Amino acid sequence: MAEENDNTIFVGKKPSMSYVLAAITQFSEGKNEITIKARGRSISKAVDVSQIIKNKFIPDIKFDDIKIGTDQIESENKEKINVSTIEITLRK
Amino acid sequence: MAEENDNTIFVGKKPSMSYVLAAITQFSEGKNEITIKARGRSISKAVDVSQIIKNKFIPDIKFDDIKIGTDQIESENKEKINVSTIEITLRK
Repeated sequence: MAEENDNTIFVGKKPSMSYVLAAITQFSEGKNEITIKARGRSISKAVDVSQIIKNKFIPDIKFDDIKIGTDQIESENKEKINVSTIEITLRK
Repeated sequence: MAEENDNTIFVGKKPSMSYVLAAITQFSEGKNEITIKARGRSISKAVDVSQIIKNKFIPDIKFDDIKIGTDQIESENKEKINVSTIEITLRK
């Protein structure tokens, strides 16, 4: 998964609404496209965030591109473990 | 979300590998397309299941279509609550 950039919101442990507001702010600043990314257990929250943006704030948003993948990360005891990823591109 | 049919695997509380094996079985019976569906916290597991099928069993599988949405369900005290959904279509 690419590094976070200005158009990317990386969903983690904060409440869903933090990420929703971050996205709304970016759209209101004139961006037309935002990518929401998450790994592992946060994938469900990334879908929630995308749906809240559409259902409560910007009804005509399009989920332009949804990609799933696998990242390899290193556990504490140096084992390589696979973790699933999602990238949801929202376009206004 | 449409009802479960022969080409659909609904991911819930069982271990990921149960759903992986269900999908592998369907592909080995000659199906070319399977849809994996999940709601709420099980969305992450649906992505895991799809990735395990591709990474460990059928490397040339395509994630043909990934859709996200919202279902309204009724809670125990008859309130309507929104729950996110995912549908991942795998094609051989």
